[in-house]
Amino acid sequence: MLSIGIDIGGTKVLGALVDTSGTVALEKRIPSPAQDPDQMVEVVASLITELADAAGQELEAVGVAAAGFIDATGSTVLYAPNLKWRNEPLRERLEQRTKLAVVIENDANAAGWAEFRFGAGQGTKDMAMLTLGTGVGGAIISDGQLRRGGFGIAGELGHIRVVRDGRPCGCGRKGCVEQYASGTALLNAAKALVASNDPAAAMLAQLSPSAGQLTGQHIAQALLAGDSGARALIEDLGQYLGEAMGSITAALDPEVYVIGGGLSEAGELVLDPIRRSFEAEVPANGFRPVAKVVGATFSNQAGVIGAADLARQSLR
Amino acid sequence: MLSIGIDIGGTKVLGALVDTSGTVALEKRIPSPAQDPDQMVEVVASLITELADAAGQELEAVGVAAAGFIDATGSTVLYAPNLKWRNEPLRERLEQRTKLAVVIENDANAAGWAEFRFGAGQGTKDMAMLTLGTGVGGAIISDGQLRRGGFGIAGELGHIRVVRDGRPCGCGRKGCVEQYASGTALLNAAKALVASNDPAAAMLAQLSPSAGQLTGQHIAQALLAGDSGARALIEDLGQYLGEAMGSITAALDPEVYVIGGGLSEAGELVLDPIRRSFEAEVPANGFRPVAKVVGATFSNQAGVIGAADLARQSLR
Repeated sequence: MLSIGIDIGGTKVLGALVDTSGTVALEKRIPSPAQDPDQMVEVVASLITELADAAGQELEAVGVAAAGFIDATGSTVLYAPNLKWRNEPLRERLEQRTKLAVVIENDANAAGWAEFRFGAGQGTKDMAMLTLGTGVGGAIISDGQLRRGGFGIAGELGHIRVVRDGRPCGCGRKGCVEQYASGTALLNAAKALVASNDPAAAMLAQLSPSAGQLTGQHIAQALLAGDSGARALIEDLGQYLGEAMGSITAALDPEVYVIGGGLSEAGELVLDPIRRSFEAEVPANGFRPVAKVVGATFSNQAGVIGAADLARQSLR
Repeated sequence: MLSIGIDIGGTKVLGALVDTSGTVALEKRIPSPAQDPDQMVEVVASLITELADAAGQELEAVGVAAAGFIDATGSTVLYAPNLKWRNEPLRERLEQRTKLAVVIENDANAAGWAEFRFGAGQGTKDMAMLTLGTGVGGAIISDGQLRRGGFGIAGELGHIRVVRDGRPCGCGRKGCVEQYASGTALLNAAKALVASNDPAAAMLAQLSPSAGQLTGQHIAQALLAGDSGARALIEDLGQYLGEAMGSITAALDPEVYVIGGGLSEAGELVLDPIRRSFEAEVPANGFRPVAKVVGATFSNQAGVIGAADLARQSLR
């Protein structure tokens, strides 16, 4: 049977029909009206209806993933800074509009669940997911289940602190790893490097003479070309993320870390610095097993695959 | 039915007969031969035998708690810096000596389980325990179960980092919260204060003119007397611990933190600074529920109560 998975992002909304083996049967994507929370509900509801019509069969479940804090019942978006939602009863509004049973899930939780069930985390029982994108998202699988915590907001691994009195974060704290190891942080660091006229910025400056117009694509290009400036930026990012993972291992002791999100598409160029830093940061390393650090199997479809499967489980 | 719980500490070994409601029917304590791992096995085995004889009935289970990293099967002490054990097959050795089925558990996990089942965490489903003693121990209960992680070493919350490039820790990392918020850290800070001749040290210096002979008792005395020097030390401790709890909440989102260990016996004098710091450190506070911070119900019996109950569960 098919389920619908929706992944609401800051720039696009992705929707898919997903079968029970995690395979995407049909995918649709539309631009995200991220600045208009009411319009967003309309857009998502229409996408669900369109996919339901396209399915041509009864659907098992509808799962909607969004970047934000979701309450413990999978109903309300408590806080979604990038989507302008505060205490938004998203489940109820979507169910009214679509006449289908809907479950809301945090986007990184959905991605982590997809990797655990069908991807890089398959065969383990304790896994942590880190998604490196606009922010740093996270998900925790322990003893084979996604853990949502007491209030539904567990797995916000991007808000582990790495620097005391560090860079301010949107969450109100300072020094969260998200401010050092997200795609946004990397781009800011690269722009600062280009603006500084440091010799290490030579290749990046050649690719984008205006620091302001530098993109992740330019950084990826420089990285692949072996540029030492770009590599130093990634070393830095890996250093901070590995330090956070040392603390995560102290708390959760996963068997495997799955690294996803846009940045992970650079593969070992990004994974290797993360892994080296992490291994130096494992408490009591040498006296214990050490978690593997691997890249995600699914890239931008992880959210829809995981949302569909979690909804299926929850509605059963 | 009765079970045996043993709690191996650096200064004493505590053993007890515990009933199914978590009540201690009989307790015995002997000095800990912490510097001699072989002697420790003998001492613990004798204590188990003695308690078994005293029980005068068939026992349900034997649980042994120790401060250290225990493997996922509850058999081997991987690493116990204070007890000189490395890859010690403690379960097998105790079973051979006692002819009883034994389960090994981390001491803070045992204490956390006691609080969850019978104490301050009763009625919740997601709880974190922090024990403030020689070190900072931790335990994670999520969805009603103790979580041991992929390799058995989850819940080592004392090794969450709070200061980048901070104080070196026995685990090989730097800046672990254990180096700032344990009883040992508090005592070191108090000794340094007394040695500094700072006016804030006046009362502590009066209680113990020699900084080297200062004890936790002196600090507790000064604290109860309202001494501003002692209170400043506890503020500092609470600040660091609350910061670590901010990161723990990001990852695990517990409903309640239970604060145990020797330091927690000072009650609100210690809990209040911890709670204030934590509440300032909750990611997105104001847009989400915030965990309670409460003192432990059991003091030094938590380990034996939890070890007995966990063994009972595991052997069923």
